Amino acid sequence: MTEYDTESQVTEAQHAALQLANVDEATRNAALESIADAIRDHAAEIRAANATDVEEAEAMLERGEYTQALVDRLKLDDAKLESIAEMVESVAEQQDPLGETLEARKLDADLELYKVSVPIGVVGTIFESRPDALVQIAALALKSGNAVILKGGSEASESNRTLYEIIREATAELPDGWVQLIEAHEEVDRLLEMDEQVDLLMPRGSSEFVSYIQDNTQIPVLGHTEGVCHVYVDEAADLEQAEAIAFDAKVQYPAVCNAVETLLVDRRVAETFLPPMVERYEAADVELRGDEATREIVDVGEATDDDWDSEYGDLELSIKIVSDVYEAVEHINAHGSKHTESIVTEDAETAETFMTGIDAASVFHNASTRFADGYRYGLGAEVGISTGKIHARGPVGLAGLTTYKYYLEGDGQLVATYAGEDATPFSHESLDGEWTPGRLEDE
Amino acid sequence: MTEYDTESQVTEAQHAALQLANVDEATRNAALESIADAIRDHAAEIRAANATDVEEAEAMLERGEYTQALVDRLKLDDAKLESIAEMVESVAEQQDPLGETLEARKLDADLELYKVSVPIGVVGTIFESRPDALVQIAALALKSGNAVILKGGSEASESNRTLYEIIREATAELPDGWVQLIEAHEEVDRLLEMDEQVDLLMPRGSSEFVSYIQDNTQIPVLGHTEGVCHVYVDEAADLEQAEAIAFDAKVQYPAVCNAVETLLVDRRVAETFLPPMVERYEAADVELRGDEATREIVDVGEATDDDWDSEYGDLELSIKIVSDVYEAVEHINAHGSKHTESIVTEDAETAETFMTGIDAASVFHNASTRFADGYRYGLGAEVGISTGKIHARGPVGLAGLTTYKYYLEGDGQLVATYAGEDATPFSHESLDGEWTPGRLEDE
Repeated sequence: MTEYDTESQVTEAQHAALQLANVDEATRNAALESIADAIRDHAAEIRAANATDVEEAEAMLERGEYTQALVDRLKLDDAKLESIAEMVESVAEQQDPLGETLEARKLDADLELYKVSVPIGVVGTIFESRPDALVQIAALALKSGNAVILKGGSEASESNRTLYEIIREATAELPDGWVQLIEAHEEVDRLLEMDEQVDLLMPRGSSEFVSYIQDNTQIPVLGHTEGVCHVYVDEAADLEQAEAIAFDAKVQYPAVCNAVETLLVDRRVAETFLPPMVERYEAADVELRGDEATREIVDVGEATDDDWDSEYGDLELSIKIVSDVYEAVEHINAHGSKHTESIVTEDAETAETFMTGIDAASVFHNASTRFADGYRYGLGAEVGISTGKIHARGPVGLAGLTTYKYYLEGDGQLVATYAGEDATPFSHESLDGEWTPGRLEDE
Repeated sequence: MTEYDTESQVTEAQHAALQLANVDEATRNAALESIADAIRDHAAEIRAANATDVEEAEAMLERGEYTQALVDRLKLDDAKLESIAEMVESVAEQQDPLGETLEARKLDADLELYKVSVPIGVVGTIFESRPDALVQIAALALKSGNAVILKGGSEASESNRTLYEIIREATAELPDGWVQLIEAHEEVDRLLEMDEQVDLLMPRGSSEFVSYIQDNTQIPVLGHTEGVCHVYVDEAADLEQAEAIAFDAKVQYPAVCNAVETLLVDRRVAETFLPPMVERYEAADVELRGDEATREIVDVGEATDDDWDSEYGDLELSIKIVSDVYEAVEHINAHGSKHTESIVTEDAETAETFMTGIDAASVFHNASTRFADGYRYGLGAEVGISTGKIHARGPVGLAGLTTYKYYLEGDGQLVATYAGEDATPFSHESLDGEWTPGRLEDE
C-alpha cells in the first residue's frame, strides 16, 4: 500500500481516463468478468476485512453511536458477495454506451459531421457505509470508460480497501490508475475543490450528506437529496385502484426516495375514500397526520406546515384535502422535490393537467410512485436518480456517465469558402452510418 | 417602470416558467414574430436609447476608459436592428424542441413509459456590452419554453431597458413575468446565489468574466471561458491543404474562440512546410512565435511556456515542432481548452489516433477549426459553445435549453406485483408513438 496523496491520485486518474476512453468493449467487459471472479475467489478475505469493520460498528452500536440499520447495511455475507459479483456481471452484459453515433450530418460534399458518445473522463463518488456501492460504482465507471475516484465511509474502511485492492488486481490489464481509493476524511474537501480535474461527482447517502456535497463544490453533482413524493386521488379516480396505489406507494418499501410522503385527496371524494384508506394504513402501522379538513372525516394526528416538506422515509404519511387538480398541482410544485408524482383518475384531461403542470422528473397516471427506478424503467444498472434538470434527470442509466464528441471529416475545407458574399451554402443533410476515420477516401 | 427586486423577479419567473412550459408551439412562434415586428416598429426609439449609451461610451473612450471595439459592438443602426429582427424570425422557424418523445417503452401490459422533452425552467444570462445578445437569448428561451432572467452590462443600460420593454409589450399574451431584466450591478451576486430558483446560467463575455461567473455560483453554467485550439500538420499531410487550413483557421476571423492559437508541425515535414507557411502568415501580418526547433528553420519570435496556454484572440500564433502524432496529442491534452482541434493528414490511422486520443468537444480531420459553430453544424440558432462535458458539449443548439420528463401511463399497477419471489417480470419493449394522456383507454 503506497502513501495516498489525493492530487497525484486524481492526476493519475486523468491520465488513465484518456487511455481508458479508447479501450474496446471486449476488454472492458473482460475486466468486469475478472472483477466478478475475483470477488468470488477472495470471498474469505473480504469477509475477514468486513468482520473487522462490523466489530467496530457493533462496539459503536453498544455505545449508542450507531444504529442497527447502519450495522446491517455494512455486513457482507456470502449471499451478499455473490449478489455483488452477479451485479458486476450484469453491468458487463449491458449494451456498450460508448461509440454510439448520436447524429450524423453532411455539411457539404466531403464534409461530414458525426456526434459520437464518449466517456465523461474522471468521475468521483463519495458514499456512506455500504461497501457494495464501491463495487457498483467502479463497475459502472469501467463499463462507460471513465476513471473513478472512490471515497467510502470510515466505518467500512477495511472492507473498502480490500475490495479496492481486489478490483485493481483483477483489472491489471487496464490503464494503470483508472480506479483510485481515497481514505482520509480530510481528503474529501480537497477532492471537492478539484473542479478542474474531476468532471462529475456522484454522492450517495443521506439528504444532509448529498446537500453538503452539492453546497461545497463547483464540480457538477449527479444525484438527489430528497424525495417528497405525492399521490393525488382525483374526483374521477377509481377509488379501489387509488387505495391500492396509495398503499403500495407508502408501505411496499417506505425507506426509499420514491415512496409517497403526502397523500392529496379531492374534497369531492374524501368522505368516501378516506375511512377505508385510513383503516388499511393503520392496519399496516402507518402513522398518519392530516390537515383540518382530513381530521373532520377521519381520526388522525395533526399535520403542521413542516409535514408538507418532510421526507419521512418511514411508515409515516401526511394527508391533505384539496379542491381540485389545480390545487394539487400548486401544492406539489410548492412542496415536492421534483422527484416522482402520481395522479389517480379516469379522466384523461385531468391527468393531462396534472402531468404537464407538475415540474418533476417522473409524473405517473394510475401507477405507484415506486416505479421510478432505473431497473423498472428498463435502463439497466442505475447510476443514480437525479432531481436536477441538467445533464440527466430522474433514474439515470449508463448513458448518464457519457458525453459526446463531434468528429468532422473533411477534404481541406476552409471557412472562408462558406463566409461572405459568395458563400457556398451548407447542405446539412442527415447521414446514415458510423464515423470511421478516412471514410471519405473509401467512398 | 416598477422597482426592481431580484428575488421577487426570479419568483415571478418561476411561476411563469410553469405556465410557459405548456404554451403551445403556435403561440410561442406568434410571440416571436410579434417581437420581430415590434423591433422594426420601434426602431427609432431603440436607436435613440442606444445613442445615449453610445454617447456615454464615447466619452469614456476619450478618457481612455473604453476601447473602440467595445463602442462598435454597442452600436445599433437600422441594418443591425433589421438583422436582429431576422434572427428572431429564424428562431421562430426552427423545429420545436419541446414535446419530442425521446424514448418510449412498454414496461408491461397497460404500463407505458414515455421520455418527453420539456423546458429546463428558469434560465439566467449575464452578458457584456452587445445589446443584441439580450434579444437573441430572450428569443431562444421563449422558443424553448423557458422563463429568462437577463442581466446586461451597464454600458448598454438604456438600449437594454428599451429592448426589454419592447419584448414585454410584444409578448403580453404569454404568462406574465416570463422575461425579467436585472439592472443594478450588485444584483448579479444575488442572482448567482439563487441556485434553488435558477436552473441554468448562460454567461457571455470575456474569459475572465465567464470564469468569474463559474467560480461564484452553484448554478450550472453553460458556456466556455477560452478557446486554445490547435492545428497539427502531420508527416502524411497534403502540405498545400495544410497551409490553406492553418491560414484559414488563424486569419479568417482571429478574434473568435475557434481560431487556432498554436500550430503543431511534424518534425519530418517542418523544413518543407514552414518557410512558405510563415511567408504567407507574415504577408497577412500574423505575429509568429516559435519554439527552438522552429526558429532553426524560420526567423520568428521566441515562444515561451506561456504561449502554449494563450488564447491570443488576434493575429498572433505560436508554432511548435513535435516528433509525431503522439506528442501532438499529449501537447494538446496538456494545453488545449477542450474546444476544437484539427489534424491534417492523408493517413487514416494517424487521424484516428489524433481524433480518439484528444479530449475535446470537436476534433477535425482535414478541415479548419473555424467550422466549430452551431450554424455550420446545422444546429440552427446557437445557444452557446460549451467546453464542459456535462449536459451539452461543443456548439449547443436549442436542445441545450431543454431537459426531459418521464410520463408513466398505468392502469393501477403496484410495485408489489413486480417485487419479491413471485414477481411479474417487466417486458421492456420499445414503443412507437407519442405520449397522450389516456392513451391506454383509447387502445
